[in-house]
Amino acid sequence: MAFSLTTGLAQKEFICDLPFCRVLFEDNADYPWIFLVPRKENVRNMLDLTTEERLTLMREIEICERALANIYHPTQTNVAMIGNKTPQLHVHIICRFKGDLYWPDTVWGGKSRPYLTTIKYQTIDRIKKEILSCQKLLS
Amino acid sequence: MAFSLTTGLAQKEFICDLPFCRVLFEDNADYPWIFLVPRKENVRNMLDLTTEERLTLMREIEICERALANIYHPTQTNVAMIGNKTPQLHVHIICRFKGDLYWPDTVWGGKSRPYLTTIKYQTIDRIKKEILSCQKLLS
Repeated sequence: MAFSLTTGLAQKEFICDLPFCRVLFEDNADYPWIFLVPRKENVRNMLDLTTEERLTLMREIEICERALANIYHPTQTNVAMIGNKTPQLHVHIICRFKGDLYWPDTVWGGKSRPYLTTIKYQTIDRIKKEILSCQKLLS
Repeated sequence: MAFSLTTGLAQKEFICDLPFCRVLFEDNADYPWIFLVPRKENVRNMLDLTTEERLTLMREIEICERALANIYHPTQTNVAMIGNKTPQLHVHIICRFKGDLYWPDTVWGGKSRPYLTTIKYQTIDRIKKEILSCQKLLS
């Protein structure tokens, strides 16, 4: 399956590949925040997926949502497909907490505070392990 | 199946019921904007759905996305589950156009300009017909 990441997504750190999606990491220490990107060429939004692919995407969203919830126990999980600025389908999964930087508003277009490098790679590793564990449980 | 709408959602205009979700209308003339609300009690976000319910939700999102795209031919469709302020699961489906009021930023928390009443009910009727037509095609 031909697949490449557009510039904005290619800069994100890699977490792991699920059967359909690549999972990427947002380097913003204020929120646990990841992306699912279907590994299929020329997908601007979900209308470019078949029904079967959409359902697979939803299963992988579930795996990732549960993984983040297991680690972080957020007040709310935001799941969103926007793509106005980056027109390659990517699903935001963001853990939100009462009292976080922008709570209860949305975080898009806000400030971004990077992780310390060691903390970043520990965080990616922890998320990766939990995603792979949830993948086993849910498949 | 017991089901009630929380205050913020109960004020929205009704479009139609799909097998799993109620479809509601956002009275904002700047964007075609609807919501899908699973007709199940005590669902704060998708983690409160079974895997089967999630997949049904995704099928109904597809029906509604296609219906809006068929009518409005947007530049991009935004699909989002946020729920920080209204913690009853509701899926935003919003048609976005290059050059619209907040393009390319997100619209949450922005200004809201209501439809003229006659236009509002014509719009709801048109969306309802297209959703029911897409429902037949996709099921």
